[in-house]
Amino acid sequence: MNLASASPWHGKGLRIDVTTGVTTVAAVPPDVSRAYLGGRGLGAYMLLAERVFEIEPLAPQNPLIFAPGPLTGTGAPAAGRYSVSARSPLTGTIFDGNSGGGWGNALKHLGYDYLHVTGRCATPSYLLIGGGGSELRPAAALWGLDVPDTLARLRELHPKCEAAVIGPAGERGVLFASIVNNRGRSVGRGGLGAVMGAKNIKAIVLAGDGGWRPHPADKERFDFVVYEATKMLKSNPITSQGLPEFGTAVLVNVLNQAGALPTRNFRESVFELAEQISGETLRRDHTTKRAACRGCSIGCARRTATAGESGDGPEYETIWALGASCGIGDLTAIVEANYACNRAGMDTITTGATIACAMELTEIGALKGGPRFGDASAMRELVDAVASRDGFGDELAQGSLRFAAAHGHPELAMQVKGLELPAYDPRGMKGQGLAYATSNRGGCHLRANMLYPEILGIPKMIDRFATLGKAGLLINMQNLACVLDSLSLCKFTALAMKEDYYARLLSAVSGETVEPQELLRIGERIWTVERLFNLAAGFSAVDDTLPPRLLNEPVAAGPAKGHVVDLAPMLAEYYICRGWNAAGVPSRPKLEALGVAGLAEAAGVEAQ
Amino acid sequence: MNLASASPWHGKGLRIDVTTGVTTVAAVPPDVSRAYLGGRGLGAYMLLAERVFEIEPLAPQNPLIFAPGPLTGTGAPAAGRYSVSARSPLTGTIFDGNSGGGWGNALKHLGYDYLHVTGRCATPSYLLIGGGGSELRPAAALWGLDVPDTLARLRELHPKCEAAVIGPAGERGVLFASIVNNRGRSVGRGGLGAVMGAKNIKAIVLAGDGGWRPHPADKERFDFVVYEATKMLKSNPITSQGLPEFGTAVLVNVLNQAGALPTRNFRESVFELAEQISGETLRRDHTTKRAACRGCSIGCARRTATAGESGDGPEYETIWALGASCGIGDLTAIVEANYACNRAGMDTITTGATIACAMELTEIGALKGGPRFGDASAMRELVDAVASRDGFGDELAQGSLRFAAAHGHPELAMQVKGLELPAYDPRGMKGQGLAYATSNRGGCHLRANMLYPEILGIPKMIDRFATLGKAGLLINMQNLACVLDSLSLCKFTALAMKEDYYARLLSAVSGETVEPQELLRIGERIWTVERLFNLAAGFSAVDDTLPPRLLNEPVAAGPAKGHVVDLAPMLAEYYICRGWNAAGVPSRPKLEALGVAGLAEAAGVEAQ
Repeated sequence: MNLASASPWHGKGLRIDVTTGVTTVAAVPPDVSRAYLGGRGLGAYMLLAERVFEIEPLAPQNPLIFAPGPLTGTGAPAAGRYSVSARSPLTGTIFDGNSGGGWGNALKHLGYDYLHVTGRCATPSYLLIGGGGSELRPAAALWGLDVPDTLARLRELHPKCEAAVIGPAGERGVLFASIVNNRGRSVGRGGLGAVMGAKNIKAIVLAGDGGWRPHPADKERFDFVVYEATKMLKSNPITSQGLPEFGTAVLVNVLNQAGALPTRNFRESVFELAEQISGETLRRDHTTKRAACRGCSIGCARRTATAGESGDGPEYETIWALGASCGIGDLTAIVEANYACNRAGMDTITTGATIACAMELTEIGALKGGPRFGDASAMRELVDAVASRDGFGDELAQGSLRFAAAHGHPELAMQVKGLELPAYDPRGMKGQGLAYATSNRGGCHLRANMLYPEILGIPKMIDRFATLGKAGLLINMQNLACVLDSLSLCKFTALAMKEDYYARLLSAVSGETVEPQELLRIGERIWTVERLFNLAAGFSAVDDTLPPRLLNEPVAAGPAKGHVVDLAPMLAEYYICRGWNAAGVPSRPKLEALGVAGLAEAAGVEAQ
Repeated sequence: MNLASASPWHGKGLRIDVTTGVTTVAAVPPDVSRAYLGGRGLGAYMLLAERVFEIEPLAPQNPLIFAPGPLTGTGAPAAGRYSVSARSPLTGTIFDGNSGGGWGNALKHLGYDYLHVTGRCATPSYLLIGGGGSELRPAAALWGLDVPDTLARLRELHPKCEAAVIGPAGERGVLFASIVNNRGRSVGRGGLGAVMGAKNIKAIVLAGDGGWRPHPADKERFDFVVYEATKMLKSNPITSQGLPEFGTAVLVNVLNQAGALPTRNFRESVFELAEQISGETLRRDHTTKRAACRGCSIGCARRTATAGESGDGPEYETIWALGASCGIGDLTAIVEANYACNRAGMDTITTGATIACAMELTEIGALKGGPRFGDASAMRELVDAVASRDGFGDELAQGSLRFAAAHGHPELAMQVKGLELPAYDPRGMKGQGLAYATSNRGGCHLRANMLYPEILGIPKMIDRFATLGKAGLLINMQNLACVLDSLSLCKFTALAMKEDYYARLLSAVSGETVEPQELLRIGERIWTVERLFNLAAGFSAVDDTLPPRLLNEPVAAGPAKGHVVDLAPMLAEYYICRGWNAAGVPSRPKLEALGVAGLAEAAGVEAQ
């Protein structure tokens, strides 16, 4: 496959140093496009090649790399996403997140495959990029505004613009601040909003249209594959009915019934008030209408309202983090806390999980006067305090690991590599424990979610309580996620579409045959490059672990009763299947097979 | 789940000793039904519990167990199959095969969940079972007739009967003789037809209708799940179009393009004449119409014709065995040789593979005056000679391993545990090598076919050249195959349906909730019982291997060039994931978890 020259998506990037205002347009070498696709893969490659592992996350030199993918803007279904990559201030690892909405398409329509931002503005500014060029504009009048107000004001200043912005949390350096575009579409996790805030950049505004449009090399074939893919999305029961009808919140009851709904900071795995905060209750009491990202036929999003407010979400993870995780069964309080997080621009998972951690510290007496499990009004107030870094909220703004460590109990932070675990108790689905431990951005369900095979039976049902035999499937899922994040496609498409379709879409766009197997090897390469970054940044096999509670404290009641995660044998199997040595370092033959031995050498990573 | 008493499919079996004519009706204990479902699982349980591992396969005491499954006859889609289980004379392992058509439904309509036949008739006989009872009838007038004539004659004698018969190959003890019902539906592999022949039984005829009908406990729910399942089969691209349109023969070009079409006794993995014997060519030159098993909406079968004859098939495996495997590109000769195998009642895979082995022995000078690769008329003549055991055919009738060993080259028999490998070169799809080596009935693609994930990307695409990380998926597929063979459902349904649907069908039939995870554990139990049988019969880890060619001779040309199967690490991973020790013996805790420790002990199998 050759993504260069003749290809309509030969790479071109815009590099801006906001300290000096120097702007450069750089080509993406064809071999880089071929090897990393775009989006997350392109970001990972640049972060490693540029030795960002040596740079402090909040230093000006930490680049924020915005990148859509080779399918963005082509009309391929659910392909309108973009990735943001940087070193994370929350985890210290390589990090990327992605978001839907219209921003990715807009960058592509300006002719760019990536935007690379370094430096620090002397005063609050926003970056305006249009067909004619780019410039930094003062943002004094925007600074301090919440996300919806910022977006609204920018639309007034630049009609029809697309903007990716930070809220007060990002301005104030909350370590889990997000970057938000459109209404409620976020690059949520890992504090990339704090990186943007540290650069004194309030928004990146794409105004006007460069007029550039991707042209699939084989338009007829492309249209046919899109037609087929859309048909599959519209006939698959989950993408045509399950997600549009119920959204992700339907998982509350599913996980609770499986005994895998972490409750009260993972003390329990069944929540007695689950029904009150379920997707079914949300639908009955709060949902006003469905919504979708641009170019998506699935439409898993929804608009909601309470007596006093309206807004987007909450998604399943949010309901869990601000609900079951805190022992809270008051759905209205959860919905309103979710709105508050969205306004402030902060990750709901880390927000809720950090509050839950504080609640446990209070319960055990390690924190005086802190919040208690089940106290919805304390939770609601703390969300605002974190966003504004007022009082106790200032401490929580560091995330659970730093907070719990400061109070003498780092083991009570339910995190991996500093990123708070999401809404699945791995003692009830063992493979998810391996997924958390090996995720290269920390405790996360988006590098690979064993929910699908372990609970939902997609693409195959596997025994959720089994320990061995899962590494191969997990690796396959991790590699595929790399591909989807680099094509900048929504992961939900994988519920209805197979690797084959992604390969056919890419073949039609590039005009050259891309085999499904080749895509998986690209995914493996991206995963390996991310691992190399983390190894170069000082992470090692020691960090591929779980909070001690999940390893040592058997679940006390419910369907997962008596279970812990037996991680060691799973991890050993995982390293072997990855072609890594027992210290978790990729072997030389593996690096050579993936064509990244030179990158590893340059980063100083070598297998013993 | 409770399959007993109130359940419409509480077990009842008919046991016949044909030496004495003694007939017994026995109940299937509810705990056995719950643990083994029916079909293959029930057969495996009985063969182990009855210590058949101590019995010579062609001895009268080796039972032939015919068993439909709990869904047979209910109207569930593609659920009309039945299994036949026995110790195989070809492999010495536990063995089962299954077949579609109407025979399984007919046994169920007589009220039986299994038929267990032991002994040996003094003279050729057939077993007639009707609503009123069963009897042995003389078969002197049938003995010597080929399969179609036998079936036709029996239909004259017993209008509307369903009959499972053997042809001349079974009568004469060809070690790979099959049992055939309806037109061209066979229990093909492992020589179960020779077991029937050794009992002097020409046919098992089900005449009349006992009037018994399965009644799903929850009819409304059952109908809804059947409606949904049928919709899935009819909307899935492969089950609704691929298989009905092209049949399995479409795989000739697919495997050839992947460099995994074994050619000339696995000397090569690309066949230069593949196009001439492809599914597309078959369709153009020979196919007259499509066909289906009873109650199946897929319809993968087809009727064909040559200038002189007409008949059923050939399927992909047959085209390969009598074609590429022998270096033969003459499709008409292949189609006619297939008809000859069907008439004689012999497994086409072993027939073709054994002839291919003879061809290689001739090429290397180990066999004087034998057939040569590419000689279609020699192949065609040898098929008849094998069936009649005339001259040289008598030697070939033992299968490739005994034949090649007799000529000093056992390593040139392309088999595992005595069963000839089917149409997939594992050097181009490494996981298939592990599937062959661990299959508990020998070299086979029906215990689990890595074609799906390694070539077709179903349910997930995996790297076909990778060695590690595949054991977990393979085990899952092996366990699921146990479930499908025990429910007596066609495996092709799994292309469109998930474990979930099987669980829901079974729940509706039994009236009790069966979880998908529980089904997988039943599958694991059945697989383990089969392993215990083989261990008790004297097989060990040493037998979990491949022909040396596949381990040591790199493919010389084509897409798999340079590859061999690196089996040892895959096998080690497999044993670990199975919970077996390094000698391939299930650990005590695993046996206990599956509830088969007592069976293992009784069989004298114990892990060190």
